[in-house]
Amino acid sequence: MAVGKSVFPQMPAIDGVRLGTAMAEIKKPNRRDLVVIEVPEGATVAATFTRNAFCAAPVHVARDHLQSAAPRYLLINTGNANAGTGVRGRQDAESCCASLSDLAGVDAHQVLPFSTGVIGEPLPVARIVAGLPAALASLSEEGWALAAEGIMTTDTRIKGSSAQLELSGGTVTINGISKGSGMIQPNMATMLGFVACDAKIDPVRLQQWLRDAVQVSFNAITVDSDTSTNDACTLIATGRGPEVESAEDERRFREALTSVLTELAQAIIRDGEGATKFVTLQVEQASSVDEARAVAFTVAHSPLVKTALYASDANWGRILAAVGRAPVKDLDVDRIVIDLGDERLVEHGGRADSYTEQAGARVMAREEIVIRIRLGRGDSHATVWTSDLSHDYVSINADYRS
Amino acid sequence: MAVGKSVFPQMPAIDGVRLGTAMAEIKKPNRRDLVVIEVPEGATVAATFTRNAFCAAPVHVARDHLQSAAPRYLLINTGNANAGTGVRGRQDAESCCASLSDLAGVDAHQVLPFSTGVIGEPLPVARIVAGLPAALASLSEEGWALAAEGIMTTDTRIKGSSAQLELSGGTVTINGISKGSGMIQPNMATMLGFVACDAKIDPVRLQQWLRDAVQVSFNAITVDSDTSTNDACTLIATGRGPEVESAEDERRFREALTSVLTELAQAIIRDGEGATKFVTLQVEQASSVDEARAVAFTVAHSPLVKTALYASDANWGRILAAVGRAPVKDLDVDRIVIDLGDERLVEHGGRADSYTEQAGARVMAREEIVIRIRLGRGDSHATVWTSDLSHDYVSINADYRS
Repeated sequence: MAVGKSVFPQMPAIDGVRLGTAMAEIKKPNRRDLVVIEVPEGATVAATFTRNAFCAAPVHVARDHLQSAAPRYLLINTGNANAGTGVRGRQDAESCCASLSDLAGVDAHQVLPFSTGVIGEPLPVARIVAGLPAALASLSEEGWALAAEGIMTTDTRIKGSSAQLELSGGTVTINGISKGSGMIQPNMATMLGFVACDAKIDPVRLQQWLRDAVQVSFNAITVDSDTSTNDACTLIATGRGPEVESAEDERRFREALTSVLTELAQAIIRDGEGATKFVTLQVEQASSVDEARAVAFTVAHSPLVKTALYASDANWGRILAAVGRAPVKDLDVDRIVIDLGDERLVEHGGRADSYTEQAGARVMAREEIVIRIRLGRGDSHATVWTSDLSHDYVSINADYRS
Repeated sequence: MAVGKSVFPQMPAIDGVRLGTAMAEIKKPNRRDLVVIEVPEGATVAATFTRNAFCAAPVHVARDHLQSAAPRYLLINTGNANAGTGVRGRQDAESCCASLSDLAGVDAHQVLPFSTGVIGEPLPVARIVAGLPAALASLSEEGWALAAEGIMTTDTRIKGSSAQLELSGGTVTINGISKGSGMIQPNMATMLGFVACDAKIDPVRLQQWLRDAVQVSFNAITVDSDTSTNDACTLIATGRGPEVESAEDERRFREALTSVLTELAQAIIRDGEGATKFVTLQVEQASSVDEARAVAFTVAHSPLVKTALYASDANWGRILAAVGRAPVKDLDVDRIVIDLGDERLVEHGGRADSYTEQAGARVMAREEIVIRIRLGRGDSHATVWTSDLSHDYVSINADYRS
């Protein structure tokens, strides 16, 4: 099940960024489960990783490698997360990097590993290594769609986004692909995003811009509140295109980057486990962005709000109660205004006088729903996207391993 | 659905505490939906209330009344929560208190109101007032079981607990009843507890002891992470029995009080919405109790852990991932030990070598499951009880109003 239509966009080539795939039978045969992304020499690479304390072996290794060398290859496998695998897991990730570096003639530290799939089983290193020649042989600047397929686990759709923008020095292209359909899959580990552009940007700014864009995109979505052990988002700037120079260039670039990442993040929610609704939570008039996010996530995580969304039931009492228990000090409920779509739901500490069950039901019947919460405390705001909690969510997660 | 057996205990009379009920047709006919509890003159009353910012009208009124007079009557209705009802809601709650005080010959401030039921509909004051004479006429020291029935909403069982203990001055009896089967019902608002004893205790200590006992009982359970707008727990000490004098008396009394409250709280989880499992989360070796509770609640709220429990699937990766994302700084995963029942699940940052799927499946097949998490950071610990996330939970919450 997935919400809305999905079209994989045209992905213009980005000079020097080549993508290859292979069927390595990591977990199942006849499945594109190995992806190699080649990064041109001289490129800058930024990355953000999961904050889960039990982060997976490839996260540790990718972090280390990023600090010691300029990446030339990203190596991604599905079918096995190499998480909860201890010391051996790191050795296995290093082995795969070393094999790829041997074949490609680069240093092992110039390979960043990424894994997604089942937690706690040893990485099948031999199969990954055996698949590398085929993946390298298929490297192509046209490989974006196949790579998007190659990073899928239980996703039902390939996910991509592309943007072109004009800077003072010329046209810049940004391409991205992502995978994920729950914050954690059944026992799969989960969200990955790979984005590349041809702009020239120094490492410090690239990392900062990626971090900021991830905060309002991948870090603003939730299916079930669970943060994966393997989440990662990588941004390559090849430097072969125009430099991001002026303040106006920066504004445009960051806006386009945020837009690409947001589209990739939203695609994960639309493809969320058992999702039948795509829900936007806008929290405004908060005293800080953190506060706005806290309120938005409290509502987005509430099983009672999520089941009401699933039932298309405008159960405003549940939304009100979730806002009321958000971790915010001295919330003045008399100042809170909650709108469901274009209907006023709550004001003056209770149900709005204008509200009717019929009007609420009309909004809730839609597949895409906006809940807008104004706190009356300040100027900060945040937006979070989530899905509903359906019978299918329980089935997918309860029946997965049985 | 409910977990385990339930027996309503023998409730010895507590001199001066009388309970009466009536069928007031607040929402449905032929249902005991109105309860009056008479508190003897000279008694001390302590209470704790929900921290939800959108707390209900009766919570505001009960708090005010408690501060201005010694309570003589508790007035409880089901079928309507009088929540999200603004200024009118408070007036309605005051009206009901005034009617009862007129009939009983006490001051209106000596009545504490409690409501549970649908959020956002006006309280049917006339029906409640019309039911009061019958409720008063039925007042009896033997009324505990009928009162337990009278406070039920979607509960499938009446819930009671009783203890007797020897203090230096003689025998003390503690009786309690509770209701609730989700932290918030569909759109019902929810947990109520009424406890009485014949000990003599000053108000300051009574309030402190209640607060401490609630923290490790009612505040240590979660069905779905939602905190109701109406939650309240009230403790009456009539003062007609022995005084709690020595340190040993205090220790014994607090232990018995905690035991009664814990039994009432656990009964709510056993009767949890769609519950098929009763799960105990023990977090030990934390650097503070708050930290231990934070880890326990993160696991207890994880939809992925809860669906795995429902499926009787020892999906240790989900437990590990939930612990890893708990809001605890500098968690050293290598020191964490997780046991599932008597099986070691996680140690040294990954799956325990001794663990087998068969052993895990054997533990998960049970109706009562203990998950023990040692953090290796200190001496503090906390226990939290929860239920699983089942298809029935979604059905109950998605289909309730439709």
